[in-house]
Parts: sequence; structure tokens; C-alpha cells
Amino acid sequence: MQAEILSIGTELLLGQIVDTNANYLAQQLPALGLDLHYVTQIGDNLPRLAAAFRDALARSDVIITSGGLGPTEDDLTREAIAEVMGERLEIQPHLEQDLRAFFTRRGRTMPDRNVKQATTIPSGTYLPNPVGTAPGWWVERDGKVIVSMPGVPHEMHKMWAEQAEPRLARLITGGVIVSRMLKLAGIGESHAEEALGGLTQSTNPTLATYAKSDGIHLRLTAKAAVRGDAERLLDEFEPRVRERVAEWVYGGESDSFPAVVGALLRARGLSLTVAESATGGELASLITEAPGASDYFLAGYVAYSAAAKQALGVSQAVLQAHGTVAQATTQALAAAARQTAGAAVAVATTGVAGPDPSEGKPVGLLHIVVDIEGRQVCQETRYSTTRTEFKRRGALEALQLLWRELKHETTATA
Amino acid sequence: MQAEILSIGTELLLGQIVDTNANYLAQQLPALGLDLHYVTQIGDNLPRLAAAFRDALARSDVIITSGGLGPTEDDLTREAIAEVMGERLEIQPHLEQDLRAFFTRRGRTMPDRNVKQATTIPSGTYLPNPVGTAPGWWVERDGKVIVSMPGVPHEMHKMWAEQAEPRLARLITGGVIVSRMLKLAGIGESHAEEALGGLTQSTNPTLATYAKSDGIHLRLTAKAAVRGDAERLLDEFEPRVRERVAEWVYGGESDSFPAVVGALLRARGLSLTVAESATGGELASLITEAPGASDYFLAGYVAYSAAAKQALGVSQAVLQAHGTVAQATTQALAAAARQTAGAAVAVATTGVAGPDPSEGKPVGLLHIVVDIEGRQVCQETRYSTTRTEFKRRGALEALQLLWRELKHETTATA
Repeated sequence: MQAEILSIGTELLLGQIVDTNANYLAQQLPALGLDLHYVTQIGDNLPRLAAAFRDALARSDVIITSGGLGPTEDDLTREAIAEVMGERLEIQPHLEQDLRAFFTRRGRTMPDRNVKQATTIPSGTYLPNPVGTAPGWWVERDGKVIVSMPGVPHEMHKMWAEQAEPRLARLITGGVIVSRMLKLAGIGESHAEEALGGLTQSTNPTLATYAKSDGIHLRLTAKAAVRGDAERLLDEFEPRVRERVAEWVYGGESDSFPAVVGALLRARGLSLTVAESATGGELASLITEAPGASDYFLAGYVAYSAAAKQALGVSQAVLQAHGTVAQATTQALAAAARQTAGAAVAVATTGVAGPDPSEGKPVGLLHIVVDIEGRQVCQETRYSTTRTEFKRRGALEALQLLWRELKHETTATA
Repeated sequence: MQAEILSIGTELLLGQIVDTNANYLAQQLPALGLDLHYVTQIGDNLPRLAAAFRDALARSDVIITSGGLGPTEDDLTREAIAEVMGERLEIQPHLEQDLRAFFTRRGRTMPDRNVKQATTIPSGTYLPNPVGTAPGWWVERDGKVIVSMPGVPHEMHKMWAEQAEPRLARLITGGVIVSRMLKLAGIGESHAEEALGGLTQSTNPTLATYAKSDGIHLRLTAKAAVRGDAERLLDEFEPRVRERVAEWVYGGESDSFPAVVGALLRARGLSLTVAESATGGELASLITEAPGASDYFLAGYVAYSAAAKQALGVSQAVLQAHGTVAQATTQALAAAARQTAGAAVAVATTGVAGPDPSEGKPVGLLHIVVDIEGRQVCQETRYSTTRTEFKRRGALEALQLLWRELKHETTATA
């Protein structure tokens, strides 16, 4: 079946916001067996909106929209659908009641104009929005479906997962679609696909890979008549996937990489410190993304100058012999940070973030040292990218090295 | 005149990349007097691409595309335009020569398939691409224009600024369009608009505001027959804009906020340190975005635990009397960091990043202290946002406070 997306809002066409909703939805559709052929961004203009719905209905089976469901006169998605369907907006008393209750819970009175958010048309039904005032619409006629959701990303994501996707799954497959995610660190997308081999060709469950800022995400999706059957398909498929990429899997849908590393430290009662030169605070910032990081993260040092490295405990002899960017210096930095912070584990970085070379060392060079109770592991990488991206990727790679070492030690001692 | 954007590439429809090109272009079009009515994302499929070009030509005057200009069989933007125009692709010998030279400069031989990047159609001319292998196309017929550019963002940005925008300006206005940017820090978008008052209604030059992650950007755009006249319009307009927002302007198009703060420190010979609790390394990371930050940024401390704060020099008495999140503690932290690092200036943060309250202090509370040679300025803010966003906004606000104080001091002593 063929799908298309309408992203609705004049702020998109003025360049005020980037259309991340279309990207989110585009990632969800393959699992439903929907082919996405068009994404259209369109403003809050009734004739153009109505024309866009007519075009979409003429060429696609499923039209998914976000935006234009607010309470103001600018918000015209409902009006456009009603016009195209030749139907009238009708206030739904129970929906109006829900909306008033939403405002009451927040200690406010519902403004009159919000009553338009309590309307549907006879072909339509509404999709509840527990986290906002804009309910969605589900409109079905002549074998075509329009799903309209709010433009606020977190409201749309929730409505998609809880309302729209299950309904579409029933409609399209007559059954259910169940997804699981595995997150990988320390491996690139093409290597991950290579490791997965023939599994990426599987048709039910399917397996899709996405390159994200925190690693590679794998989405496993099964279709079946009832949820139990889909879960069983995944229970059989997931171990086969894990087997191929076991070394790199760090978690599932709700896991964040800094929190996973934190959990390993917490489980072993290890405290952590970092001494950053090249990554300039980005590694500490990544580590403190995890709620409760203060349980194990004692202190971080951004030792940007040679003097700061010496103050931390790196000897002048090491700096003179090797310079500020070198494996030996990074090792000394890690040892010094561990001692100064009184931590069990230290991660240190030195390198050349650019744009200019430093001490004859090339731009993009990065040394990472992980020091776990005195045992040191070193890594040298060379990036070809911007200063900002160097810091971001370098910090992630340092955290990945720490994770790998903590995991191996845990496995070895288990 | 009416414009529309086609973002071309199957990877968009699979959700593998977010369409930031459309957003970039959408921001550029108002300055040209072009109204953007549609953005369409479409895959690398010849019939659908051709249909999209036909629709666009029927309803718009200017069609701007990105993507689909690569050398492989998947890349079909050229073929689609040729089909819609009823013309044949012809190899341009001088263009082929340029392309071969591009490969030679990189020590490689041009693969045969790349010759298709050296073609145009009789209605078209090519736009040079000095930083990649995909030249753009400029196609003009029956008063309509198609501008096709590569999908790689930095190649597209360069081609837009150097080739496409000046040509469109000549075509649309018979003259030139010149833009300048002012960047503001420490003020929100609605306050900026309020301060600018009637100037936002000006028609030539125009004035547009954009909320960005590093502050508010103002774009001033003048149209005139020749560049000199446009520059004169801006020379007259810019001071009127600056006058209204003088307190918040930190630079122009090519200025980054961390580098501007760094330049103030460098000019006064002041060294810098930071002691972060709440912002967890994000402030140091922001400061080290500036190339050459090591000239003034000596060291950063992420004093996450009470012990780390004490090790830095905060007395136990202060911690016991005020707790770890308090103005007095933040003041002590700034003073201790300044002393430990031997720096002239320190910035310190404490707060509750969340998701849980801490020591009875609410989530979102942030204390910032800027200490310039012993003179301390304190600020307390309360955010209602996620942990990640709290750190990002908190770090920016800390840097803004530092900038404001450095600027005031510089003005006062000048």
C-alpha cells in the first residue's frame, strides 16, 4: 500500500522549524508495509491544503498529517479535510467534555475558541491526546484513510505509537505489528549490515538499520494476527540477530548509552573521572546526560593547557618527552586524574580538534586512554571532520572504549 | 513570485536523513521576494520525479531542487528535467574537462559513469561546484526557472550563495539582493521583535528574525539595481536596527558566540576557568568550540560530587550551611576554581538538572556566578525542560552572563 505525509504549518515554509516529524514517520512506515512516495510541506492556507488532500487521496491509500490542529484561526487541517470530504464539522459533546477537563486539571478555563478542537466529521473519529489539547483525527472512506496528528513532536509520537500505528496495523494486516529495537555501539552501519548478513532480507520479522548520533539502531518488526504470535516471531528472531552483533549491543528502545555505561559502573561499585584535552568537556557532558550520574561520576577535568595537565599531576618530563598530544601523555593524564579524583576509573583524551595542526600533529588525531584500577587501554583514531563533530564523535568513542572494557571485565570475572 | 522546493532522494523517504536543505532554502527565499508554497520530498524514481516537476512548473515560477545529481543510475534529477522539457542530455566538453581535472587534483581517474555529471540540456546551463563532483543546473524556459543543486548540504550552501541566489536576484529584481546578519544573545525572540518595533515592517530593506540555538539571528536584506545601492540602503538601515538592540548584538554572519567571548578575553589578556556542577561539562564544551580557545581557557572542573567541590577549595562550612545547590556555594565554587586554575575569570554553575529534585531544591533551578578578578555577579534561573536541554541552555546562559559582564567592563574602562 502507498502512503504519503503532509507536514502542515506556515512556520515550515518560512524556515522557522525543521520538519523532523516527517523523518520520524518515514522511519515508522516500512514496518507497516507502507511505501512512502511523497512528503509535502504545506502552509496554513485552506485552498492549498484542500488541493493537497485531493492530490494525496488520488494517488495514495494512506495520508498521514501532522500540524494544523491547534485552536486558532490559522489551524485549518480539520477544515480542509471536511471540505474535501464534503462534510460538516460537528462538535462532539464527550470530546468537548474531555477538553474542558484537560484545562480544569491545569487549573484553567477552556477558551471558547478551543471548542473547534472538539469537532469531527461523520466519516471521522478522534484520536485522544492525553498530553495536549489537540486530539487527532482518523478519517476512513472508500478504502482510503487520513490520519491527522498534532505537530508538537512529543504529542505526535505518543499518538502515533498508542493510536495511529495499532489502527493502521489492524487495517493493513488485519492483525498487529510489534517492533523491538536493539542499539549498537562501536560499529558502523555498513559493518553492522555485513555482520547481520541474510537477516536483513527477512520479510517477517523485518530488520532495518538506522545510523544515529549514539550508534546504530536495529528495528525488528513482526506482523501476525494477534500480539502473542508477533511476540513469538520476535522471540525466535531476536536471538538470531543478537548472536550476529552480540559484541556491540548495548540496549533496547528505552536505553541511553551514557546510562548503560553508568549502570555497569554502579553495578561494580566503580567511581569515574575524566581528564579531557581534545574533547574539551564534551565527554563529561555526555557522561552527565545520565540521570543520577553523580552516584559514580566524581569529577571531570578539562586540562586544556600544559600547566593544567601538570597541575593535575602529569610530570614535566612526560610533557617534554612526548608533547601534549601523545599516547604516553594521555596515559599519564588518565593516571593523574584517577589519583586526583580518588576514582577507580579514568578516561583521558588528547588530540588536535583543529582547525590548525598543533605541535606538528595533524588535525583530527585523537588519543583515548581508559584506566580501570591501573590497567590501561589505549586507542588512537584519526578523524576528518569539523571541530564540533571531532569533539562529539571523540567523546562518544571514548565512552564506547570505556563501555567495551567494563563489559569485557564484567564478562571475564563473571 | 511563487517558489517551490523539491528535495530529491529515496533516503529522505526511508527516514535515513532529515531534510535540512529545505529548511535552509526556506530561510533564503523571503529575501528574494519569493513566496514558498510547497516543499516536496520525493524519491529517485523517474516517473514520479517527472510528474513532480510537471506539477511544480504548472503552479510555481521558480523550482529549486536539491539531490539526485550524483553519478550513479539512482540519480535521476537531470533525466527527469530533460524528460519534462522534451530535450536530450548533451555532454558539455568543457564541463567534462573540469570534472576530469577535479579528479586529477585528488590523484584519481574519473570513473566513466561520472560523465553524466557533465551533461546539460539546450534550455539549461550548469552551475559550477568547486567542492564536489555534482555541478548544478539552471534551466530557464517560458518565464519559469528550475535551479537544481546537489544534496550534500555544504556543496548546496556554497552553490546557492555564489551561483543560484545572485542569478535569481538578477532575474527577479533585475538587480541585486544583499543581506547582512546580526546575531543577538541574552534576549528572546518576542522581546527582540518588541524592541525592533516598526522596523520589522520595513519593505526594503526587510528585517527577519530567527530563533537559533546560539541566540536570535536578524537578517537585513536590501534590493537595488546595483550592489552599491543595496549596500547603501543597508548602511543606512543597519545602525537603526543596531540602536534598538545594541545591548544584545554580539556579531554578524561569520561570528560564533564562543569565539566572540574568547576575543573579549584575549583582547584584555584575561584567562578563564569554569567550575561546573549542574551543567556537567557542557559549559567547557561550549567554550572549547572556539578555535584557539587554549589561548585563554586554562582548565575546567566538573565538580559533580560534594567531595570534588571540597577538593577544589569550597569549604565544608559553606557546603553544610547552604548545601550543594545555592548562590553562596556557587560563589565559593567560582572563587575556588579561579584560585586553583590561577585564572583571572571563573564561571561556576550549580543546580538541579533533574529528573529528580535534589536536597529539597526543585528540578530546573540553576545558579550561575561569574567572577572577574574577584568581582562576582550572580544569576538565578528556573527552567522547565529536559535534563539535556537544561544543560545546553544553562551553559549558554552562563556564557551570556560572562559576555555581558566582560562587555560592560570593557565599555566602562574604555
